[in-house]
Amino acid sequence: MPQFLDTADPDFETDFVALLAAKREDSPDVDAVVAEIIADVRARGDDAVIELTQRFDRVTLTPDSLRFSPDEIARAMEQVTPDDRTALELAAERIRAYHVRQMPQDEEWTDASGATLGWRWSAVSAAGLYVPGGLASYPSSVLMNAIPAKVAGVGRLAIAVPTPDGQVNPLVLMAAHLSGVDEVYRIGGAQAIAALAYGTRSVAPVDKITGPGNAFVAAAKRRVFGKVGIDMIAGPSEILVIADRDNDPDWIALDLLSQAEHDESAQSILITDDVGFGRAVADAVSKRLETLERRAIAGASWRDFGAIITVRDMDEAAALSNRIAPEHLELCVADPAALSQKTVHAGAIFLGQYTPEAIGDYVGGPNHVLPTARSARFSSGLSVMDFLKRTTLSQMTPKALRAIGPAAAQLARSESLEAHGLSVLARLERLND
Amino acid sequence: MPQFLDTADPDFETDFVALLAAKREDSPDVDAVVAEIIADVRARGDDAVIELTQRFDRVTLTPDSLRFSPDEIARAMEQVTPDDRTALELAAERIRAYHVRQMPQDEEWTDASGATLGWRWSAVSAAGLYVPGGLASYPSSVLMNAIPAKVAGVGRLAIAVPTPDGQVNPLVLMAAHLSGVDEVYRIGGAQAIAALAYGTRSVAPVDKITGPGNAFVAAAKRRVFGKVGIDMIAGPSEILVIADRDNDPDWIALDLLSQAEHDESAQSILITDDVGFGRAVADAVSKRLETLERRAIAGASWRDFGAIITVRDMDEAAALSNRIAPEHLELCVADPAALSQKTVHAGAIFLGQYTPEAIGDYVGGPNHVLPTARSARFSSGLSVMDFLKRTTLSQMTPKALRAIGPAAAQLARSESLEAHGLSVLARLERLND
Repeated sequence: MPQFLDTADPDFETDFVALLAAKREDSPDVDAVVAEIIADVRARGDDAVIELTQRFDRVTLTPDSLRFSPDEIARAMEQVTPDDRTALELAAERIRAYHVRQMPQDEEWTDASGATLGWRWSAVSAAGLYVPGGLASYPSSVLMNAIPAKVAGVGRLAIAVPTPDGQVNPLVLMAAHLSGVDEVYRIGGAQAIAALAYGTRSVAPVDKITGPGNAFVAAAKRRVFGKVGIDMIAGPSEILVIADRDNDPDWIALDLLSQAEHDESAQSILITDDVGFGRAVADAVSKRLETLERRAIAGASWRDFGAIITVRDMDEAAALSNRIAPEHLELCVADPAALSQKTVHAGAIFLGQYTPEAIGDYVGGPNHVLPTARSARFSSGLSVMDFLKRTTLSQMTPKALRAIGPAAAQLARSESLEAHGLSVLARLERLND
Repeated sequence: MPQFLDTADPDFETDFVALLAAKREDSPDVDAVVAEIIADVRARGDDAVIELTQRFDRVTLTPDSLRFSPDEIARAMEQVTPDDRTALELAAERIRAYHVRQMPQDEEWTDASGATLGWRWSAVSAAGLYVPGGLASYPSSVLMNAIPAKVAGVGRLAIAVPTPDGQVNPLVLMAAHLSGVDEVYRIGGAQAIAALAYGTRSVAPVDKITGPGNAFVAAAKRRVFGKVGIDMIAGPSEILVIADRDNDPDWIALDLLSQAEHDESAQSILITDDVGFGRAVADAVSKRLETLERRAIAGASWRDFGAIITVRDMDEAAALSNRIAPEHLELCVADPAALSQKTVHAGAIFLGQYTPEAIGDYVGGPNHVLPTARSARFSSGLSVMDFLKRTTLSQMTPKALRAIGPAAAQLARSESLEAHGLSVLARLERLND
C-alpha cells in the first residue's frame, strides 16, 4: 500500500519532509570503470569502441559497420507496421509544431548613448543523441531529443544506440528517420559517449550530447561535460496528480500507474481534498495492479514510493505541489487554469481530466524530457534552447565611448585592472584630441 | 614572446591544433577535501561553517554575525567614493536595461485538434551568488550576477563573500545594494556553497548558485549540482582580436593585455591579415609590459599562451575564430557587422575599433560572465534565463483527445507501456459511449 498522509495530522510536516527526502535511487558507483573506458577510447579510438562493443553487447563490428548504412535503415523500417508509422508521424509532426514556436528571436537596438547592443542565437554545429539499447529503447524519446535539435538548426545530428546481441528496434530507426537524424551508430555505454565527445576515426566528435541512459552512460556524460555540453542527468519518473472528487477514480489510478510502471524507483503521488476519493483511487490502483502487464514494477513503485495526501483545500495542494516540484503535474479540478497559476514549480502541467500525462509522453507536442528529483525548482525540460547558444553583441561609436567609457575606466581602476582602463582611456585620448 | 603562426606555413595546422589543445589550467584536486567540508556543514550546520571560517579566513563569527547587518552595509558603503558610486550606478542601470530585454514571453495557443498548448516562465524562488573574497573581489561581477537574477524575479537573493582577516570590499557591498540583494553572508569557500545548497539554522537554502570562485568553490559547486542548479564552471579568461592594418597597434595591444592581466592562465590571441601589423602589435605589447602594474601576470600569460596568427584573408580569420570559439571576440575590421555574421561561435562580440572588450566588462550592458575553454560552441553567457525555468502546459478537450489519443495509445503499446495506453483508452471509451 502507498503512504496515506493528511495535512490535518499533527505529524504531517515530519512525514511530508521524509517523503520529499526519500532516496529512491541507489546508483552504482561506476565512475572508475567509466574513466577507464573513456581513456581507452581517447587513446585507441575505433579499436577500443569495437572491442568494448564486443565485450558488452556481444556484437562484432568493423570500422565500416559501426554506422548503420542507409540500406540497413530502410530494411529495418520496412518492419514497422503502418499503424505504428502513422502514429509516429503524427507525434513527430506535433512535436515539431510545438518546438518551432520555441525558437527565440535575435535582437539589436541602439540606446541613448549611441551604443548598438543586442544578441544573436546560433545552433550547436553537431549534436549526439544517446538512445538506450535493445527492444526496451523508446522511439518516442528519439523524437523528443532529435526534433528540437533539428528545429534549432543543428547541422549534424548523430545517434548512438547499442544493439545488444544484434537486437535492433525498427521503431527507433524509423523515429530517427522521421526526425532527420544524419548518422546512426550501433554503439552504446560509456564507449559511445566517449566516441561522440572526443571523436574516433569513424565517429566525428559532436559539441553537445543529450538523451537518457543507464548508470554508465550518466557517469560518462558527467565526465565529458565541459568538453561538450550535456542535457540534464534524469532520475526516475514522477507524477503528482491533484484531483477533486469529481473525477473517475479509475482514470486517476491509471495516470498514477502510468508513471509507476516505468521503474520501481518511480514515484506517483495523489493530492486530493476528499479523503474518500483518495481511498477510492487507492482501491482502483489495487484493482488495476491485479492485471497490469508491468504489475511487478508498478506495484513495487506504488508500494515503496506512492502516496495519497489529503488536504483541506486546493491552496494547500498548490503549496505542497510547489515543495514537491514534480516532473509531471496533473490538475484534475474544476478550474485547472486557476490552480495552475499557483503551481509554479513543475516540469509540465496537464490541465483537466481529459489530459492524461501519457498524452504528453507521445503526441501532445511539449517535450517529455523533464526535470526530475525536485529540480523543476531551477531547471526546465528539453527544448530548442538546449541546442542553441547566444552571442552578445556590442558596438560603440565615438559618442557612446565618450558617454560611458569614463565609468568603465573608473571601475577598472577600482578593481586594479590597469590595462582594462588603459584600453578605454587610450581611445578617449585620441577622440578628445 | 607569444607564438607567431601563419596559415601559409606548412606546419600551421599542427601548430594551431596544439594551440587549441594547450592545457592552461592545472586545477588542484581538492574534491576529497571539499566532500568532507560539505558533509560537515550538512551534519553540523552553523557550527561547521563558523569553525571553517575561523580556520580558513581567520575570522570569528557567531550565528548572529554570519550575516552583514543593514547597519554594517550602510557604514561600509559610506567608504565608497562618489566617483566609484556614480560609475557603479551607471553600470547597474545599463546592465539592468540590457537584461530586461532578455525576458522571454509566455505563450498559449489552441491548435487544429482543439488542444491548448503553451508554456509559462517562472523565476527560481531563491538564488545564491558567490563572490570571491578580500580586496581582490570584483564589484562588477556582483552586478553581472545579481541584476539578471533580480530582473528574472528571484524572490530571495543571497550573497556569500568571505572576509579573510576581516577584509571587506565596500564596493562589493555597494554593488549588492544597487542590485537589490537581500542577504549578504561573510562566509566563503566550499562551506559557503554547502550552506547555500543545504541550508543551516542561519542560512536558508537556495535553489540556484552562481558566481566565480577558486578550485574549492568550483569543486563544491560541481558536488551540489543536482541538489541545486549552478551556472557554468568558468575557466581562465580569453580574448581573440581580429584586426586589419587600419588599427592603432597600441589599442589592440591594450585589448590583448586587458585579458592577459587577469590571470597567468589567460589567453590573448590576435588574428590579422597583415604580418607587419601583427609585429607592430607585438612590439606595442612589449612596450606596455615595461610599465603595466600587473606586468608579471600579463607578461606570463602573453609569453605562455599568447599568439599572433597571420591569415590570407578575413574568411580564413572567421573560420579559425569558429574553431577557437573565444569567450571574447573583438572585430576591428572595416566591416565588423559583415564579419560577425561569419563568427558564430563566441560568447560576446565587440564590433569596431571603438569597442574595447573592457567596455563589456563593466558598462556595455551585456553580461561579462561568458563561456570559456571553447564552450561557446555549445553554451551561452549568464542571462535572465539562468534564473528562470519553463513549465510546459497542455490541455486536451474531448475532441482533441479523440483526435490524437489513439496515436498515443498505439505508441504506448509499441513501447510495452500498458498503463500509459489504458489511461488514454479509458477516457476514450467513456467519450465514445
